[in-house]
Amino acid sequence: MNVEIIAIGTELINARVCEANSVFLANELKKMGYAVNVVTLVSDDEMALEAVLCASLGRANIVFTSGGLGSTHDDITKRYVAKVLNHKLTLNADVLDGIKKKYEERQVEMTANIQKQALLPRRCIVVQNRFGTAPGFICQEDEKLIISLPGVPKEFRQMWSDEVKGFLNARFGDLTKEEIVFLRTYGLSEMEVSDLVSPLLQRYGITWGIMPGEEGVDLELSLGTKFFASGDANIPKLKDEIEQVLGNAIYSWENVGMEFVIAHLLKLNDLRIATAESCTGGLVAHRLTQVPGISKYFERGLITYSNESKKALLGVKPSTLNDHGAVSSNVALEMAMGIRELAGTDIGLSTTGIAGPDGGSLQKPVGLFYCALSTLNGCFSHSFKFTGDRTVIKFKGSQVALNILRLYLKEKKVK
Amino acid sequence: MNVEIIAIGTELINARVCEANSVFLANELKKMGYAVNVVTLVSDDEMALEAVLCASLGRANIVFTSGGLGSTHDDITKRYVAKVLNHKLTLNADVLDGIKKKYEERQVEMTANIQKQALLPRRCIVVQNRFGTAPGFICQEDEKLIISLPGVPKEFRQMWSDEVKGFLNARFGDLTKEEIVFLRTYGLSEMEVSDLVSPLLQRYGITWGIMPGEEGVDLELSLGTKFFASGDANIPKLKDEIEQVLGNAIYSWENVGMEFVIAHLLKLNDLRIATAESCTGGLVAHRLTQVPGISKYFERGLITYSNESKKALLGVKPSTLNDHGAVSSNVALEMAMGIRELAGTDIGLSTTGIAGPDGGSLQKPVGLFYCALSTLNGCFSHSFKFTGDRTVIKFKGSQVALNILRLYLKEKKVK
Repeated sequence: MNVEIIAIGTELINARVCEANSVFLANELKKMGYAVNVVTLVSDDEMALEAVLCASLGRANIVFTSGGLGSTHDDITKRYVAKVLNHKLTLNADVLDGIKKKYEERQVEMTANIQKQALLPRRCIVVQNRFGTAPGFICQEDEKLIISLPGVPKEFRQMWSDEVKGFLNARFGDLTKEEIVFLRTYGLSEMEVSDLVSPLLQRYGITWGIMPGEEGVDLELSLGTKFFASGDANIPKLKDEIEQVLGNAIYSWENVGMEFVIAHLLKLNDLRIATAESCTGGLVAHRLTQVPGISKYFERGLITYSNESKKALLGVKPSTLNDHGAVSSNVALEMAMGIRELAGTDIGLSTTGIAGPDGGSLQKPVGLFYCALSTLNGCFSHSFKFTGDRTVIKFKGSQVALNILRLYLKEKKVK
Repeated sequence: MNVEIIAIGTELINARVCEANSVFLANELKKMGYAVNVVTLVSDDEMALEAVLCASLGRANIVFTSGGLGSTHDDITKRYVAKVLNHKLTLNADVLDGIKKKYEERQVEMTANIQKQALLPRRCIVVQNRFGTAPGFICQEDEKLIISLPGVPKEFRQMWSDEVKGFLNARFGDLTKEEIVFLRTYGLSEMEVSDLVSPLLQRYGITWGIMPGEEGVDLELSLGTKFFASGDANIPKLKDEIEQVLGNAIYSWENVGMEFVIAHLLKLNDLRIATAESCTGGLVAHRLTQVPGISKYFERGLITYSNESKKALLGVKPSTLNDHGAVSSNVALEMAMGIRELAGTDIGLSTTGIAGPDGGSLQKPVGLFYCALSTLNGCFSHSFKFTGDRTVIKFKGSQVALNILRLYLKEKKVK
């Protein structure tokens, strides 16, 4: 069953905002066994919309549209869905009643424009909108379906979950053919991950995608009939085998950031942490505090940007700063020990580096980065050399620092 | 001149990552006077890619593709561009030499897979890739162009700026028909901004888009021939008139974050700042330290998550914490005064609130937020009630805190 998604709106093309409905829907459909190979973003241009609707209808069994169902001047979906299917738009009395009621409840006057929302393709199935006034609809022609929902993500999702998903299940039954296994790694290159896992995955006939990024390298495995047909194959065993080849590089089997893994490990070990950042400028603390409930484990964080603050708050020695410079292994170590002592926590984590674009030198170039961990088991530091702009270097620094913390906590847990 | 963009890669459809090249390119093309009405995301499925390439070529004069030019198993762009144009792939000797040199410099062995990157459609124009090995290319057939660039955003942008943009200008001349004016506001609702500016914009015949988000409400105005034909109309005068209606709500006429505006104002006023955050967990400091050169104006930042750290580092009184709770105007004020005194800066900025999802109560619900500013001119605090999840509340808190700082600095500057 081939499905395409069309998202409508000029703002999606020059978007400062990422189009979210198609991603949500593609993932929902994938889980149900439907293939989505094409997503089209189209502006409010009438000719373009008509062409795109025709093209998708020609290729796919089911076409979803998102957006363009409200009452403002650029809402054109309905007219063109009706046109390409050669269905007439008619005023749906039930829908009009529903809209009237909503406006009465809100005690807002209903304009003629709003009434237009009750104009729908004849013989369509109406999809109720609990959060807004514009209804969605499902049209059929020649065994093909067009399903049109509003672009507001909250409305789109509600209407999908409440009605459309069930409609598809009732109509087509369970198409599920494959199971998705997702994992995130850090510390290996795309090529290394690929070389390590491919013999194993090929043996099982698993298709997979590899996604490198600043957070590390992610893998998405699709386990199809071939995998499940192969004797004793099962998901826990597969995960074990992948862990044997990728080892500690795997930081999660879910799509969560490293900070969520850290929070879990801090909880498991019942350890508290404090951070002292220079180059990362608060990003490590910001990421840790994205996790609900972290206040039990994260005591405080300092951003000691100036040398003065490193000395006054963390007790970094003036001689260390003079002899080695603020961006040095020695300063990173003193910062980590300093914050651990000051905060009275089990762990102190520090970062210092040159985020650029200025401030680099031949000996200490932009991208040079140190982080240190002070723990019950001693204090150690690591050095790195990152490439990228200021934003990238800060992020890479935060990720490597969290990873070092993760490896320490994982080791602890094993003991 | 009708342009379409096709972004290739299965990961873009079930994307955990937002496809960025098409947005970048659509905006670049818009500035040059080209219309982009359709953007297609297509998986690595060969049939789907072929169908989509044909459909776009049928509708548009120029088709850009992004992605699928590397050497891994799912890179198929080249083969299908060649196929739909009926051009042959041939080994390009210059390109192969270039790739060999890059590998020699890196002292990495070149595999047969990598060599495949030098296979290009015959008679294409090669687009050099300064950051990676896979070249881009431009093919022509029947007055239509296909321009294929790699998906890595850094490479895509470099190749666009260095070669493709100039190629289009040389070929088609200046198509610019309209000028874009962009502005960002904070503190007014979408409806308020719309009501305030629409009489003015309508009078000038300006078309405009409005984009509400967590950073505020952005406006994009397209000034066409109608605007420039209307007597004494000019952009500085238009900006003045918009400032008269939107006033202090405008924080930038460029697409930059509030933190860049703050950094500029700190520099203008020659003032130094330190921050003390609770609820925002380092996000305010992280945002400020995204700005190159901020270390001259940002002295330090503390994330005093625990009550203990608020007392020990900032001198927040135990009685204030007991009587009013950590999330209170009084604590925000003492934090701001405490950090200003501790750091010896001109300004101290503090935040405290309940980011959720837990920790709320009837009196102090999730989303309650205080921030305070301690300055040469006294100390004052503000309270807010945000909706949204933890991530949203943290961001809204950071934005409102930076905005209060912005308004103070703007006032100073005027004096």
